[in-house]
Amino acid sequence: MPDDARHELPEGGKARRVYLLLRDAIASGAHGPGALLPGEHAMTDTYQVSRVTVRRALDALERDGLIDRRAGSGTRVLAAPATAAMSADMSTLIPQLVSMGQHSARLLSFSYDTPPDRIAREMGIAPGARVQMAVRVRLVDGAPFSHLTTFVPEDIAANYSEADLAGTPLYQLLERSGVVVAAAHQSVSATLAGPEVADALGVATGTALMSLNRIVRDDDQRVVEYLSALYRPDRFKLEMSLSRVGKGSARHWEPVVGDRGAEGAP
Amino acid sequence: MPDDARHELPEGGKARRVYLLLRDAIASGAHGPGALLPGEHAMTDTYQVSRVTVRRALDALERDGLIDRRAGSGTRVLAAPATAAMSADMSTLIPQLVSMGQHSARLLSFSYDTPPDRIAREMGIAPGARVQMAVRVRLVDGAPFSHLTTFVPEDIAANYSEADLAGTPLYQLLERSGVVVAAAHQSVSATLAGPEVADALGVATGTALMSLNRIVRDDDQRVVEYLSALYRPDRFKLEMSLSRVGKGSARHWEPVVGDRGAEGAP
Repeated sequence: MPDDARHELPEGGKARRVYLLLRDAIASGAHGPGALLPGEHAMTDTYQVSRVTVRRALDALERDGLIDRRAGSGTRVLAAPATAAMSADMSTLIPQLVSMGQHSARLLSFSYDTPPDRIAREMGIAPGARVQMAVRVRLVDGAPFSHLTTFVPEDIAANYSEADLAGTPLYQLLERSGVVVAAAHQSVSATLAGPEVADALGVATGTALMSLNRIVRDDDQRVVEYLSALYRPDRFKLEMSLSRVGKGSARHWEPVVGDRGAEGAP
Repeated sequence: MPDDARHELPEGGKARRVYLLLRDAIASGAHGPGALLPGEHAMTDTYQVSRVTVRRALDALERDGLIDRRAGSGTRVLAAPATAAMSADMSTLIPQLVSMGQHSARLLSFSYDTPPDRIAREMGIAPGARVQMAVRVRLVDGAPFSHLTTFVPEDIAANYSEADLAGTPLYQLLERSGVVVAAAHQSVSATLAGPEVADALGVATGTALMSLNRIVRDDDQRVVEYLSALYRPDRFKLEMSLSRVGKGSARHWEPVVGDRGAEGAP
Protein backbone atom coordinates (compact mmCIF):
# COMPACT_ATOMS: atom_id res chain seq x y z
CA MET A 1 0.00 0.00 0.00
CA PRO A 2 2.82 2.52 0.65
CA ASP A 3 3.20 4.93 -2.24
CA ASP A 4 6.26 6.76 -1.00
CA ALA A 5 9.84 6.34 0.10
CA ARG A 6 9.19 6.74 3.81
CA HIS A 7 9.79 3.07 4.52
CA GLU A 8 13.43 3.53 3.64
CA LEU A 9 13.82 5.87 6.62
CA PRO A 10 13.82 4.34 10.10
CA GLU A 11 10.50 4.70 11.93
CA GLY A 12 10.76 7.42 14.57
CA GLY A 13 14.12 8.65 13.31
CA LYS A 14 15.01 12.29 12.73
CA ALA A 15 15.35 11.98 8.94
CA ARG A 16 11.87 10.53 8.77
CA ARG A 17 10.46 13.32 10.88
CA VAL A 18 12.00 15.98 8.62
CA TYR A 19 10.83 14.03 5.55
CA LEU A 20 7.24 13.92 6.91
CA LEU A 21 7.18 17.64 7.70
CA LEU A 22 8.54 18.55 4.25
CA ARG A 23 6.18 16.13 2.51
CA ASP A 24 3.26 17.62 4.44
CA ALA A 25 4.37 21.17 3.51
CA ILE A 26 4.54 20.14 -0.16
CA ALA A 27 1.18 18.34 -0.04
CA SER A 28 -0.54 21.25 1.69
CA GLY A 29 0.88 23.69 -0.87
CA ALA A 30 3.01 25.62 1.64
CA HIS A 31 5.83 24.71 -0.76
CA GLY A 32 4.00 24.55 -4.10
CA PRO A 33 5.21 23.18 -7.44
CA GLY A 34 8.15 25.23 -8.71
CA ALA A 35 8.95 26.66 -5.28
CA LEU A 36 12.58 26.72 -4.16
CA LEU A 37 13.06 24.91 -0.83
CA PRO A 38 15.25 26.54 1.81
CA GLY A 39 18.92 25.51 1.61
CA GLU A 40 20.31 22.54 3.53
CA HIS A 41 22.07 24.81 5.96
CA ALA A 42 18.88 26.72 6.78
CA MET A 43 17.07 23.42 7.29
CA THR A 44 19.63 22.18 9.82
CA ASP A 45 18.73 25.30 11.76
CA THR A 46 14.97 25.06 11.32
CA TYR A 47 14.70 21.38 12.22
CA GLN A 48 17.65 21.27 14.64
CA VAL A 49 19.23 18.28 12.91
CA SER A 50 22.54 17.59 11.17
CA ARG A 51 23.21 18.19 7.50
CA VAL A 52 23.41 14.41 6.95
CA THR A 53 19.87 14.07 8.32
CA VAL A 54 18.56 16.84 6.06
CA ARG A 55 20.17 15.11 3.07
CA ARG A 56 18.60 11.77 3.91
CA ALA A 57 15.16 13.40 4.11
CA LEU A 58 15.75 15.15 0.77
CA ASP A 59 16.98 11.87 -0.78
CA ALA A 60 13.66 10.27 0.15
CA LEU A 61 11.65 13.19 -1.28
CA GLU A 62 13.69 12.93 -4.46
CA ARG A 63 12.93 9.20 -4.74
CA ASP A 64 9.25 10.11 -4.32
CA GLY A 65 9.64 12.35 -7.38
CA LEU A 66 8.57 15.37 -5.34
CA ILE A 67 11.70 17.50 -5.68
CA ASP A 68 14.50 18.20 -8.13
CA ARG A 69 17.96 18.90 -6.68
CA ARG A 70 20.56 20.65 -8.79
CA ALA A 71 24.02 21.57 -7.62
CA GLY A 72 24.25 25.33 -7.65
CA SER A 73 20.59 26.09 -8.29
CA GLY A 74 19.07 24.52 -5.19
CA THR A 75 16.11 22.22 -4.58
CA ARG A 76 12.85 22.80 -6.36
CA VAL A 77 9.43 21.29 -5.70
CA LEU A 78 8.34 19.32 -8.76
CA ALA A 79 4.80 18.42 -7.85
CA ALA A 80 2.46 17.85 -4.97
CA PRO A 81 2.19 14.15 -4.00
CA ALA A 82 -0.18 12.42 -6.41
CA THR A 83 -3.65 12.82 -4.98
CA ALA A 84 -7.21 12.31 -5.97
CA ALA A 85 -8.70 14.83 -3.59
CA MET A 86 -12.43 14.65 -3.14
CA SER A 87 -14.58 17.10 -1.34
CA ALA A 88 -17.74 16.95 0.69
CA ASP A 89 -20.71 19.26 0.57
CA MET A 90 -19.76 21.45 3.50
CA SER A 91 -23.36 22.23 4.32
CA THR A 92 -23.89 18.62 5.41
CA LEU A 93 -20.39 17.08 5.43
CA ILE A 94 -21.90 14.06 3.77
CA PRO A 95 -19.48 13.11 1.01
CA GLN A 96 -20.98 13.04 -2.44
CA LEU A 97 -20.48 9.57 -3.79
CA VAL A 98 -21.19 10.73 -7.30
CA SER A 99 -17.88 12.56 -7.55
CA MET A 100 -16.00 9.77 -5.88
CA GLY A 101 -15.27 7.24 -8.56
CA GLN A 102 -15.28 3.53 -7.72
CA HIS A 103 -15.71 3.05 -4.01
CA SER A 104 -15.64 0.03 -1.79
CA ALA A 105 -15.07 -0.80 1.87
CA ARG A 106 -12.79 -3.22 3.64
CA LEU A 107 -14.16 -4.56 6.94
CA LEU A 108 -11.26 -4.73 9.43
CA SER A 109 -13.23 -5.87 12.46
CA PHE A 110 -16.78 -6.66 13.53
CA SER A 111 -17.64 -7.46 17.14
CA TYR A 112 -20.14 -7.05 19.96
CA ASP A 113 -18.54 -5.50 23.02
CA THR A 114 -18.76 -2.80 25.70
CA PRO A 115 -17.71 0.52 24.14
CA PRO A 116 -15.12 2.85 25.71
CA ASP A 117 -16.64 4.92 28.56
CA ARG A 118 -16.51 8.12 26.55
CA ILE A 119 -18.48 6.59 23.67
CA ALA A 120 -21.04 5.03 26.04
CA ARG A 121 -21.53 8.44 27.64
CA GLU A 122 -21.93 10.22 24.32
CA MET A 123 -24.37 7.54 23.15
CA GLY A 124 -26.33 7.77 26.39
CA ILE A 125 -26.30 4.00 26.90
CA ALA A 126 -26.08 2.21 30.23
CA PRO A 127 -22.61 1.35 31.57
CA GLY A 128 -21.82 -2.23 30.62
CA ALA A 129 -24.35 -2.35 27.74
CA ARG A 130 -22.99 -3.90 24.59
CA VAL A 131 -22.82 -2.31 21.17
CA GLN A 132 -21.93 -3.52 17.72
CA MET A 133 -18.47 -2.17 16.90
CA ALA A 134 -17.09 -2.18 13.37
CA VAL A 135 -13.94 -0.83 11.81
CA ARG A 136 -13.91 -0.25 8.07
CA VAL A 137 -11.55 1.35 5.59
CA ARG A 138 -13.24 3.05 2.67
CA LEU A 139 -11.37 2.85 -0.62
CA VAL A 140 -11.87 5.05 -3.64
CA ASP A 141 -10.46 3.77 -6.91
CA GLY A 142 -8.67 1.11 -4.89
CA ALA A 143 -6.84 3.55 -2.60
CA PRO A 144 -7.70 3.96 1.10
CA PHE A 145 -9.21 7.30 1.95
CA SER A 146 -11.09 7.00 5.23
CA HIS A 147 -10.96 4.90 8.40
CA LEU A 148 -14.40 4.46 9.99
CA THR A 149 -15.18 3.16 13.47
CA THR A 150 -18.89 2.76 14.18
CA PHE A 151 -20.86 1.90 17.30
CA VAL A 152 -24.52 0.80 17.08
CA PRO A 153 -26.79 -0.29 19.98
CA GLU A 154 -26.98 -4.10 20.10
CA ASP A 155 -30.74 -4.40 19.46
CA ILE A 156 -30.56 -2.29 16.31
CA ALA A 157 -27.47 -4.04 15.02
CA ALA A 158 -29.26 -7.39 15.33
CA ASN A 159 -30.88 -6.47 12.01
CA TYR A 160 -27.68 -6.70 9.98
CA SER A 161 -24.77 -9.09 9.61
CA GLU A 162 -21.04 -8.76 9.10
CA ALA A 163 -21.52 -9.45 5.39
CA ASP A 164 -24.22 -6.75 5.12
CA LEU A 165 -21.90 -4.16 6.64
CA ALA A 166 -19.02 -5.04 4.34
CA GLY A 167 -21.20 -4.36 1.31
CA THR A 168 -23.82 -1.76 2.27
CA PRO A 169 -23.56 1.73 3.82
CA LEU A 170 -24.57 1.70 7.49
CA TYR A 171 -27.29 4.29 6.85
CA GLN A 172 -29.08 2.03 4.46
CA LEU A 173 -28.83 -0.87 6.91
CA LEU A 174 -30.30 1.26 9.69
CA GLU A 175 -33.16 2.56 7.55
CA ARG A 176 -33.81 -0.95 6.20
CA SER A 177 -34.26 -2.19 9.76
CA GLY A 178 -36.95 0.43 10.40
CA VAL A 179 -34.89 3.09 12.17
CA VAL A 180 -36.10 6.60 11.34
CA VAL A 181 -32.87 8.59 11.20
CA ALA A 182 -33.85 12.12 12.21
CA ALA A 183 -30.89 14.20 13.37
CA ALA A 184 -27.13 14.26 13.65
CA HIS A 185 -24.45 16.29 15.37
CA GLN A 186 -20.97 16.46 13.89
CA SER A 187 -17.64 17.88 14.91
CA VAL A 188 -14.50 18.18 12.82
CA SER A 189 -10.94 18.35 14.08
CA ALA A 190 -7.42 17.10 13.33
CA THR A 191 -5.48 14.22 14.84
CA LEU A 192 -2.30 12.18 14.34
CA ALA A 193 -2.36 8.75 12.71
CA GLY A 194 -1.38 6.11 15.28
CA PRO A 195 0.34 2.92 14.09
CA GLU A 196 -2.82 0.87 13.37
CA VAL A 197 -4.73 3.60 11.55
CA ALA A 198 -1.60 4.60 9.63
CA ASP A 199 -1.17 1.04 8.45
CA ALA A 200 -4.81 0.77 7.37
CA LEU A 201 -4.71 4.08 5.50
CA GLY A 202 -1.30 3.49 3.92
CA VAL A 203 0.33 6.54 5.51
CA ALA A 204 3.22 7.00 7.93
CA THR A 205 2.60 6.97 11.69
CA GLY A 206 2.38 10.59 12.80
CA THR A 207 0.70 11.88 9.62
CA ALA A 208 -1.96 14.56 10.19
CA LEU A 209 -5.51 13.32 9.54
CA MET A 210 -8.85 15.12 9.48
CA SER A 211 -11.22 13.65 12.06
CA LEU A 212 -15.00 13.73 12.13
CA ASN A 213 -17.24 12.47 14.93
CA ARG A 214 -20.95 12.06 14.22
CA ILE A 215 -23.79 11.17 16.60
CA VAL A 216 -26.93 10.07 14.75
CA ARG A 217 -30.36 10.03 16.47
CA ASP A 218 -33.73 8.61 15.55
CA ASP A 219 -37.07 10.44 15.88
CA ASP A 220 -37.20 9.51 19.58
CA GLN A 221 -33.83 11.25 20.10
CA ARG A 222 -32.21 7.89 20.77
CA VAL A 223 -28.61 7.51 19.53
CA VAL A 224 -28.62 4.89 16.78
CA GLU A 225 -25.05 5.34 15.56
CA TYR A 226 -21.79 6.84 16.73
CA LEU A 227 -19.21 7.34 13.99
CA SER A 228 -15.55 8.21 14.39
CA ALA A 229 -14.07 8.86 10.94
CA LEU A 230 -10.48 9.69 9.98
CA TYR A 231 -9.65 11.05 6.54
CA ARG A 232 -6.39 11.32 4.60
CA PRO A 233 -6.05 15.08 3.98
CA ASP A 234 -4.37 14.42 0.62
CA ARG A 235 -7.49 12.57 -0.52
CA PHE A 236 -10.35 14.45 1.12
CA LYS A 237 -11.16 18.08 1.86
CA LEU A 238 -14.20 19.94 3.08
CA GLU A 239 -15.11 22.73 0.69
CA MET A 240 -17.73 25.43 0.93
CA SER A 241 -18.78 28.68 -0.71
CA LEU A 242 -20.25 31.64 1.14
CA SER A 243 -22.10 34.77 0.09
CA ARG A 244 -22.13 37.99 2.06
CA VAL A 245 -25.73 39.25 2.13
CA GLY A 246 -27.88 41.87 3.83
CA LYS A 247 -27.29 45.58 4.41
CA GLY A 248 -25.40 47.61 6.99
CA SER A 249 -25.12 46.06 10.43
CA ALA A 250 -27.30 43.13 9.31
CA ARG A 251 -24.74 42.11 6.69
CA HIS A 252 -23.62 38.52 7.27
CA TRP A 253 -22.29 35.35 5.61
CA GLU A 254 -24.58 32.65 4.25
CA PRO A 255 -23.56 29.31 2.79
CA VAL A 256 -24.13 28.79 -0.92
CA VAL A 257 -26.02 25.52 -0.92
CA GLY A 258 -24.99 23.12 -3.67
CA ASP A 259 -26.81 20.26 -5.32
CA ARG A 260 -27.93 17.80 -2.69
CA GLY A 261 -29.16 15.27 -5.19
CA ALA A 262 -26.63 12.57 -4.48
CA GLU A 263 -25.83 11.38 -1.02
CA GLY A 264 -23.59 8.67 0.17
CA ALA A 265 -22.24 7.06 3.26
CA PRO A 266 -19.12 8.51 4.83
CA MET B 1 4.43 29.22 26.38
CA PRO B 2 4.80 25.41 26.65
CA ASP B 3 2.19 23.94 28.94
CA ASP B 4 3.47 20.39 28.91
CA ALA B 5 6.52 18.22 29.58
CA ARG B 6 7.46 17.69 25.95
CA HIS B 7 10.51 19.93 26.23
CA GLU B 8 12.12 17.41 28.54
CA LEU B 9 12.16 14.88 25.69
CA PRO B 10 14.70 15.42 22.90
CA GLU B 11 13.17 16.95 19.76
CA GLY B 12 12.74 14.29 17.09
CA GLY B 13 13.52 11.42 19.45
CA LYS B 14 11.50 8.23 19.74
CA ALA B 15 10.24 8.93 23.26
CA ARG B 16 8.90 12.28 22.13
CA ARG B 17 7.15 10.68 19.17
CA VAL B 18 5.43 8.12 21.40
CA TYR B 19 4.58 10.86 23.90
CA LEU B 20 3.01 12.99 21.14
CA LEU B 21 0.93 10.10 19.79
CA LEU B 22 -0.33 9.16 23.27
CA ARG B 23 -1.03 12.79 24.17
CA ASP B 24 -2.96 13.19 20.91
CA ALA B 25 -4.95 10.00 21.63
CA ILE B 26 -5.81 11.30 25.11
CA ALA B 27 -6.72 14.79 23.83
CA SER B 28 -8.90 13.39 21.05
CA GLY B 29 -10.70 11.10 23.49
CA ALA B 30 -9.48 7.86 21.91
CA HIS B 31 -8.19 7.17 25.43
CA GLY B 32 -10.70 9.06 27.58
CA PRO B 33 -10.54 9.89 31.30
CA GLY B 34 -10.54 6.70 33.37
CA ALA B 35 -9.44 4.52 30.46
CA LEU B 36 -6.70 1.96 31.07
CA LEU B 37 -3.79 2.42 28.65
CA PRO B 38 -2.28 -0.67 27.03
CA GLY B 39 0.60 -2.21 29.01
CA GLU B 40 4.20 -1.22 28.43
CA HIS B 41 4.93 -4.47 26.70
CA ALA B 42 2.06 -4.01 24.23
CA MET B 43 3.27 -0.47 23.55
CA THR B 44 6.78 -1.62 22.66
CA ASP B 45 5.08 -3.72 20.03
CA THR B 46 2.67 -1.08 18.79
CA TYR B 47 5.25 1.69 18.51
CA GLN B 48 8.26 -0.54 17.70
CA VAL B 49 10.39 0.99 20.42
CA SER B 50 12.17 -0.28 23.53
CA ARG B 51 10.60 -0.49 26.97
CA VAL B 52 12.89 2.30 28.17
CA THR B 53 11.48 4.57 25.46
CA VAL B 54 7.89 3.74 26.41
CA ARG B 55 8.69 4.53 30.04
CA ARG B 56 10.23 7.88 29.16
CA ALA B 57 7.11 8.82 27.20
CA LEU B 58 4.88 7.73 30.12
CA ASP B 59 7.07 9.67 32.57
CA ALA B 60 6.41 12.83 30.56
CA LEU B 61 2.66 12.18 30.42
CA GLU B 62 2.68 11.64 34.18
CA ARG B 63 4.48 14.96 34.71
CA ASP B 64 1.75 16.56 32.58
CA GLY B 65 -0.77 15.16 35.05
CA LEU B 66 -2.50 13.22 32.28
CA ILE B 67 -2.01 9.68 33.58
CA ASP B 68 -1.78 7.80 36.86
CA ARG B 69 0.60 4.82 37.00
CA ARG B 70 0.20 2.22 39.68
CA ALA B 71 2.30 -0.89 40.02
CA GLY B 72 0.01 -3.86 39.51
CA SER B 73 -3.06 -1.97 38.34
CA GLY B 74 -1.66 -0.35 35.20
CA THR B 75 -1.78 3.13 33.77
CA ARG B 76 -5.00 5.12 33.77
CA VAL B 77 -5.88 8.32 31.95
CA LEU B 78 -6.66 11.01 34.51
CA ALA B 79 -7.94 13.78 32.29
CA ALA B 80 -7.78 15.20 28.83
CA PRO B 81 -5.18 17.97 28.48
CA ALA B 82 -6.66 21.21 29.81
CA THR B 83 -8.49 22.83 26.93
CA ALA B 84 -10.84 25.64 26.29
CA ALA B 85 -12.31 24.30 23.07
CA MET B 86 -14.33 26.73 21.06
CA SER B 87 -16.44 25.98 18.09
CA ALA B 88 -17.41 27.76 14.93
CA ASP B 89 -20.78 27.94 13.28
CA MET B 90 -20.31 25.16 10.77
CA SER B 91 -22.67 26.74 8.29
CA THR B 92 -20.22 29.61 7.75
CA LEU B 93 -17.04 28.51 9.56
CA ILE B 94 -16.77 32.03 10.88
CA PRO B 95 -15.89 31.68 14.55
CA GLN B 96 -18.34 33.33 16.89
CA LEU B 97 -16.42 35.85 18.92
CA VAL B 98 -19.19 36.03 21.46
CA SER B 99 -18.37 32.58 22.85
CA MET B 100 -14.66 33.18 22.74
CA GLY B 101 -13.84 35.07 25.87
CA GLN B 102 -11.10 37.70 25.82
CA HIS B 103 -9.40 37.67 22.48
CA SER B 104 -6.43 39.50 21.08
CA ALA B 105 -3.91 39.11 18.28
CA ARG B 106 -0.13 39.17 18.18
CA LEU B 107 1.34 40.47 14.92
CA LEU B 108 4.38 38.32 14.06
CA SER B 109 5.22 39.90 10.73
CA PHE B 110 3.98 42.59 8.35
CA SER B 111 5.58 43.12 4.96
CA TYR B 112 5.02 43.92 1.29
CA ASP B 113 6.41 41.21 -0.96
CA THR B 114 5.77 38.88 -3.89
CA PRO B 115 3.60 35.99 -2.64
CA PRO B 116 4.44 32.31 -3.30
CA ASP B 117 3.45 31.26 -6.87
CA ARG B 118 0.59 29.12 -5.63
CA ILE B 119 -0.96 32.01 -3.70
CA ALA B 120 -0.50 34.42 -6.63
CA ARG B 121 -2.28 31.91 -8.88
CA GLU B 122 -5.14 31.39 -6.44
CA MET B 123 -5.49 35.15 -6.03
CA GLY B 124 -5.41 35.69 -9.78
CA ILE B 125 -2.76 38.40 -9.53
CA ALA B 126 0.03 39.04 -12.03
CA PRO B 127 3.35 37.22 -11.50
CA GLY B 128 5.69 39.56 -9.66
CA ALA B 129 2.90 41.75 -8.26
CA ARG B 130 3.32 42.59 -4.61
CA VAL B 131 0.87 41.90 -1.81
CA GLN B 132 0.64 42.81 1.82
CA MET B 133 1.59 39.73 3.85
CA ALA B 134 0.88 39.47 7.56
CA VAL B 135 1.28 36.69 10.08
CA ARG B 136 -0.75 36.88 13.26
CA VAL B 137 -1.40 34.61 16.21
CA ARG B 138 -4.85 34.93 17.71
CA LEU B 139 -5.04 34.44 21.46
CA VAL B 140 -8.11 33.65 23.49
CA ASP B 141 -7.88 34.31 27.22
CA GLY B 142 -4.15 34.77 26.74
CA ALA B 143 -3.53 31.37 25.10
CA PRO B 144 -2.66 30.98 21.40
CA PHE B 145 -5.38 29.30 19.39
CA SER B 146 -4.87 30.14 15.72
CA HIS B 147 -2.04 31.09 13.37
CA LEU B 148 -3.20 33.34 10.52
CA THR B 149 -1.29 34.22 7.36
CA THR B 150 -3.05 36.77 5.14
CA PHE B 151 -2.31 38.14 1.69
CA VAL B 152 -4.02 41.34 0.46
CA PRO B 153 -3.43 43.12 -2.90
CA GLU B 154 -1.07 46.05 -2.42
CA ASP B 155 -3.52 48.80 -3.47
CA ILE B 156 -6.18 47.64 -1.01
CA ALA B 157 -3.71 47.20 1.81
CA ALA B 158 -2.55 50.81 1.36
CA ASN B 159 -5.66 51.72 3.37
CA TYR B 160 -4.41 50.20 6.63
CA SER B 161 -1.22 50.18 8.67
CA GLU B 162 0.67 47.63 10.72
CA ALA B 163 -0.86 49.10 13.88
CA ASP B 164 -4.39 48.85 12.43
CA LEU B 165 -3.90 45.16 11.67
CA ALA B 166 -2.57 44.38 15.12
CA GLY B 167 -5.73 45.79 16.68
CA THR B 168 -8.61 45.34 14.22
CA PRO B 169 -9.97 42.29 12.34
CA LEU B 170 -8.93 42.34 8.67
CA TYR B 171 -12.59 42.24 7.56
CA GLN B 172 -13.33 45.50 9.27
CA LEU B 173 -10.22 47.10 7.75
CA LEU B 174 -11.24 45.95 4.27
CA GLU B 175 -14.81 47.18 4.63
CA ARG B 176 -13.62 50.44 6.16
CA SER B 177 -11.49 51.07 3.07
CA GLY B 178 -14.56 50.72 0.83
CA VAL B 179 -14.16 47.11 -0.28
CA VAL B 180 -17.53 45.39 -0.75
CA VAL B 181 -16.84 41.87 0.46
CA ALA B 182 -19.25 39.66 -1.50
CA ALA B 183 -18.21 36.02 -1.57
CA ALA B 184 -15.76 33.51 -0.14
CA HIS B 185 -14.61 29.98 -0.82
CA GLN B 186 -13.19 27.88 2.00
CA SER B 187 -11.56 24.52 2.34
CA VAL B 188 -10.74 22.64 5.52
CA SER B 189 -8.06 20.02 5.98
CA ALA B 190 -5.39 18.83 8.44
CA THR B 191 -1.67 19.48 8.49
CA LEU B 192 1.41 19.08 10.71
CA ALA B 193 2.83 21.96 12.72
CA GLY B 194 6.27 22.88 11.37
CA PRO B 195 8.86 24.38 13.76
CA GLU B 196 7.86 28.04 13.35
CA VAL B 197 4.12 27.53 13.60
CA ALA B 198 4.58 25.11 16.51
CA ASP B 199 6.58 27.71 18.37
CA ALA B 200 3.98 30.44 17.74
CA LEU B 201 1.09 28.21 18.85
CA GLY B 202 2.90 26.74 21.86
CA VAL B 203 2.69 23.14 20.64
CA ALA B 204 5.31 20.54 19.71
CA THR B 205 6.62 20.32 16.14
CA GLY B 206 4.66 17.54 14.42
CA THR B 207 1.37 18.21 16.24
CA ALA B 208 -1.76 17.78 14.07
CA LEU B 209 -3.49 21.10 13.28
CA MET B 210 -6.74 21.90 11.52
CA SER B 211 -6.13 24.06 8.47
CA LEU B 212 -8.52 26.42 6.70
CA ASN B 213 -7.86 28.30 3.47
CA ARG B 214 -10.24 31.09 2.50
CA ILE B 215 -10.37 33.19 -0.67
CA VAL B 216 -12.48 36.34 -0.27
CA ARG B 217 -13.81 38.25 -3.29
CA ASP B 218 -15.44 41.65 -3.75
CA ASP B 219 -18.54 42.36 -5.83
CA ASP B 220 -16.38 42.50 -8.98
CA GLN B 221 -15.13 38.96 -8.24
CA ARG B 222 -11.68 40.30 -7.50
CA VAL B 223 -9.75 38.52 -4.74
CA VAL B 224 -9.32 40.95 -1.86
CA GLU B 225 -7.92 38.54 0.72
CA TYR B 226 -6.30 35.11 0.88
CA LEU B 227 -6.25 33.58 4.34
CA SER B 228 -4.34 30.51 5.47
CA ALA B 229 -5.37 29.67 9.03
CA LEU B 230 -4.08 26.92 11.33
CA TYR B 231 -5.97 25.96 14.48
CA ARG B 232 -4.98 24.02 17.59
CA PRO B 233 -7.43 21.10 17.63
CA ASP B 234 -7.47 21.09 21.43
CA ARG B 235 -8.77 24.68 21.38
CA PHE B 236 -11.01 24.81 18.32
CA LYS B 237 -13.50 22.52 16.67
CA LEU B 238 -16.03 22.84 13.88
CA GLU B 239 -19.46 21.78 15.08
CA MET B 240 -22.73 21.37 13.21
CA SER B 241 -26.19 19.92 13.61
CA LEU B 242 -28.15 18.28 10.81
CA SER B 243 -31.79 17.32 10.36
CA ARG B 244 -32.96 14.57 8.07
CA VAL B 245 -35.99 15.93 6.20
CA GLY B 246 -38.27 15.02 3.29
CA LYS B 247 -40.00 11.75 2.40
CA GLY B 248 -38.97 8.57 0.64
CA SER B 249 -36.26 8.93 -1.96
CA ALA B 250 -36.27 12.71 -1.47
CA ARG B 251 -35.17 12.31 2.16
CA HIS B 252 -31.92 14.20 2.76
CA TRP B 253 -29.81 16.02 5.35
CA GLU B 254 -30.12 19.74 5.97
CA PRO B 255 -27.99 21.85 8.28
CA VAL B 256 -29.68 23.27 11.36
CA VAL B 257 -28.78 26.94 11.09
CA GLY B 258 -27.81 28.54 14.37
CA ASP B 259 -27.92 32.14 15.48
CA ARG B 260 -25.85 34.24 13.11
CA GLY B 261 -26.14 37.37 15.18
CA ALA B 262 -22.50 37.64 16.18
CA GLU B 263 -19.68 37.41 13.75
CA GLY B 264 -16.01 37.80 14.18
CA ALA B 265 -12.76 37.55 12.39
CA PRO B 266 -11.03 34.19 12.18
